[in-house]
Amino acid sequence: MNTVGEMLESISGVGLDSHRGGYSRPVFSSAELELRDWFTAEASRRGLEVSTDRNGIMWGWWDAASGDRAGALVTGSHLDSVPGGGAFDGPLGVAAALAAVDVLKERGVEPRRSLAVTVFPEEEGSRFGVACLGSRLLTGAINADKVRNLKDPVGNTFADVSRKHGLDPARLGRDEEALRTIGDFVELHVEQGRALIDLDAPVGVGSSILGHGRWRLSVEGQGNHAGTTLMADRADPMVVAAQIILAIRRIAAAQDDARATVGRLQPVPGGTNVIASRVDLWLDVRHPDDAVTAALVESIHGQAQKAAAFEGCAVTLTEESFSSTVHFDAPLQRQLQNSLRRSNAGNQVPALPTGAGHDAGVLAGYVPSAMVYIRNPTGISHSPEEYVERDDADLAATALADVLEDLL
Amino acid sequence: MNTVGEMLESISGVGLDSHRGGYSRPVFSSAELELRDWFTAEASRRGLEVSTDRNGIMWGWWDAASGDRAGALVTGSHLDSVPGGGAFDGPLGVAAALAAVDVLKERGVEPRRSLAVTVFPEEEGSRFGVACLGSRLLTGAINADKVRNLKDPVGNTFADVSRKHGLDPARLGRDEEALRTIGDFVELHVEQGRALIDLDAPVGVGSSILGHGRWRLSVEGQGNHAGTTLMADRADPMVVAAQIILAIRRIAAAQDDARATVGRLQPVPGGTNVIASRVDLWLDVRHPDDAVTAALVESIHGQAQKAAAFEGCAVTLTEESFSSTVHFDAPLQRQLQNSLRRSNAGNQVPALPTGAGHDAGVLAGYVPSAMVYIRNPTGISHSPEEYVERDDADLAATALADVLEDLL
Repeated sequence: MNTVGEMLESISGVGLDSHRGGYSRPVFSSAELELRDWFTAEASRRGLEVSTDRNGIMWGWWDAASGDRAGALVTGSHLDSVPGGGAFDGPLGVAAALAAVDVLKERGVEPRRSLAVTVFPEEEGSRFGVACLGSRLLTGAINADKVRNLKDPVGNTFADVSRKHGLDPARLGRDEEALRTIGDFVELHVEQGRALIDLDAPVGVGSSILGHGRWRLSVEGQGNHAGTTLMADRADPMVVAAQIILAIRRIAAAQDDARATVGRLQPVPGGTNVIASRVDLWLDVRHPDDAVTAALVESIHGQAQKAAAFEGCAVTLTEESFSSTVHFDAPLQRQLQNSLRRSNAGNQVPALPTGAGHDAGVLAGYVPSAMVYIRNPTGISHSPEEYVERDDADLAATALADVLEDLL
Repeated sequence: MNTVGEMLESISGVGLDSHRGGYSRPVFSSAELELRDWFTAEASRRGLEVSTDRNGIMWGWWDAASGDRAGALVTGSHLDSVPGGGAFDGPLGVAAALAAVDVLKERGVEPRRSLAVTVFPEEEGSRFGVACLGSRLLTGAINADKVRNLKDPVGNTFADVSRKHGLDPARLGRDEEALRTIGDFVELHVEQGRALIDLDAPVGVGSSILGHGRWRLSVEGQGNHAGTTLMADRADPMVVAAQIILAIRRIAAAQDDARATVGRLQPVPGGTNVIASRVDLWLDVRHPDDAVTAALVESIHGQAQKAAAFEGCAVTLTEESFSSTVHFDAPLQRQLQNSLRRSNAGNQVPALPTGAGHDAGVLAGYVPSAMVYIRNPTGISHSPEEYVERDDADLAATALADVLEDLL
C-alpha cells in the first residue's frame, strides 16, 4: 500500500488554483468530488466498507469480529480547502488514517472494536460560510433549516447543492445512529502555527481550541458616479469599511490572546468608476474566553456604527457562526501522549492550544475527542506555503497507528 | 417608429442584475450582444446601413445623395454598462440618435452630408479595465498591443474575446478610414450630476471633461491562518488597504475640485478565516489640472508605501489609463446652444463641465466633438437610481434632431 507521502503526491494535481496559488477545493466542487472518489478507491483497496451518510460525511469501516459498530474508534479529517490553501490541511489526516490502517494490519492487530476512517464535508466553510458544517450537522450543533438555506457566493442554497450530489435535504441534521457509532474520535492534522518547530518536536497533541466566531458586517451607502460626485457629497461605504478594518486591528491588538481578521470583503457593485452602494466584510474573531470574544465584537460593532453614522451610511452586524472554546478530553489526551512517547515520535509530545477550528472540536462536545498535530516547518497555514516534510508525513501514519492500536 | 421612451422600454429586461440591482451589460456579454442585435434591427428598420468596424464599433449609415461618407456628421453613444448601472447611461444616447433620424425624416430633411449613428464598445471599462476603449482604439489613443493583452476579471484577454465575437485581433487599432468619415461628433447622454435639476433646465451642452485616470494598487503581505497567527506576527495587506483608502479620502478632500474613489477591491485568496496574501484595489482620480492629478496620485502612492512598510507589506502602483482634461470645440458648442435655444428645450442651455468620461471626450482630441446632456432628477448615476423622465427622454430626440439638422 502507498505511504502518506505517496498518497498526497497522487492527489497533488487536484484543484490547483493558478490565480491564488495552492489549492481551491470547496465542498462539492469538481476537485472535492474527485478527492471523494479517491478516498473511496483508497479505502476500498484496504478492504474498508465505504458509505456516505445523510449529512454527506464519508465513512470507511473496518469492522471488529463482533460486527458491532456502536462505540467504535473513529479517525479522519476533511478534503475541502480554503481558497488558495495548502496541500496538507485536511488531506494529511485522511491519508494518515488510511496508512495507519495499513500499519495496524501489518502488525496483525485484530480490532477489539470497529474502526472507521471519516471524511467531513465543508470543514473550512469556504463555500457556505459555516466551518465544520459536517460535524455540526451530525451532532445537531447547527439548525438544519439554517443549513438548508445557506448560500454559496453565487447564490446556490446548500439544499440545492447537496440534493444535486445525492443527499436528501430533508434528512440533513442530527444523526443519532451515526453519533452512536463514535466511541472516541481522533483527528490528525498539520500544525497551523510554530509551536512544534520551535520545540523541535515532530508530533504534538491538542489541549484546546480557541472560541471562534464569524460575523458579516454590511455597510450601506449611496452608490454614485466616481467622477461627478463631489467628495463632500459622498456616503461611501468603502471609507466606512476601511475605518472598521482599522478599528478591528486596534481593538484586537489591545486584547491579550485575541485574533481578529477581515480576509474577505466585497464591494457592491464593484466597478472602478463607481462609488459602492454597499460593502460586505466578514469578521473572524477568536479568544479563549467567550465573554471576551463577545465584548470584542460588541466594541467593533460600536466603532462600526460610529464610523457609518459619520459618513451617512448604515451598518448591520450578523453572526454567521460561533463556537465556544473547547478543551479536549483530558484522560484521552494523556493516553495519546503516552502512546506517542512510546512510538518513534520522540519523548517530547507537547500539548498545544490552537486558534484553528476542527471537526474534532465540534465533536468534543458530544464524544471523547482528541487531536494529533504534525509539525509544519513554515509555521504558515491557509496558504500555499503550508508544508510538511516527507519524513514527518510518513511518521504521521505510524504515530497515528500507535495511538489507534492502544485505543482499539 | 418608436419613441425614445418606447425603445428604452423594449430593452428594459436585458441584463437585469438581481444581485446588485440595475443593469450589468459588460462588453461582449450576452446582454450587450443582445443590445447590439437590437441596434441592428432598429437601425435597419430606419433604412440605415449597419456595419461593425475592425474595432467593434457599430455604424448605421444614412448616406447623403452624393454617397460620400468623408466628413460625415456622426452621433451615438454606448450600450455597455457599469456593474449594477442605470438604464440610461449609454442607451439614451443611442435611442435618441435613432429617434432623431425619424424626426429628421418626418421633417423631410435631405442630408447635405452623410449621417451615421454609432455604438462604441467598452465605454465603461467595466470588463477590461480601460474606459472608452472603442474610441481609444479608433483614434490610436491607446496602443493596440496593450489592448490585445487586457484581461477581464476571469483572465480572458481582449484578443481572445474579440476574436470570439468576429473581430480580427491583428486589425485592432487606429482606423484612418473610419476616422476620416467623422466630420463632427455629437454624443447625447444622461447628466451624471445635479446641475440641470438645480438650474431647472431639461437640456445642457458639454464644456469640458475632467482629466481622469485609473490606477491599480497591489499590496503584498503574508497569507496565513486567521486563528493561529498572533496579531503582532501579521503582515496583513487588508490593514494596509484600509489605510490607503482613508489616505485617499483625506488627500482628495483637501484638494479643491478633486475626486478620488476606491470602488473595486479584491483580497486574495478572499477566505473569511484567512489573512489575505494580497489585496488589489483600484483608484479612480479626476481633476481639471493634469499636474494636480499627478500630484494627488504621487501623494497617495507615498502614503501607501508608508503604510505598507509599517505593516511589513509591499505596494506597487500601476497606471491602467489616463486622459487629460478635455475642452470641447468652442464654436461647435456655441452652435449646439443656439440650435437648442431655438428648439423646445427652453431658453436656458447651460454649458456644463463634467467629471464623467465619454467617447466624445476621447474623439475631441481628433475631430470637433460635442455633448448634449439630458437632466437626471435623482442626480445619481452608475447606480440603479439613475433616472430620466419619460417627457425628457422624448425631448432628447427632438433636441438632438434640432442640433443635427443645423449641422447637416
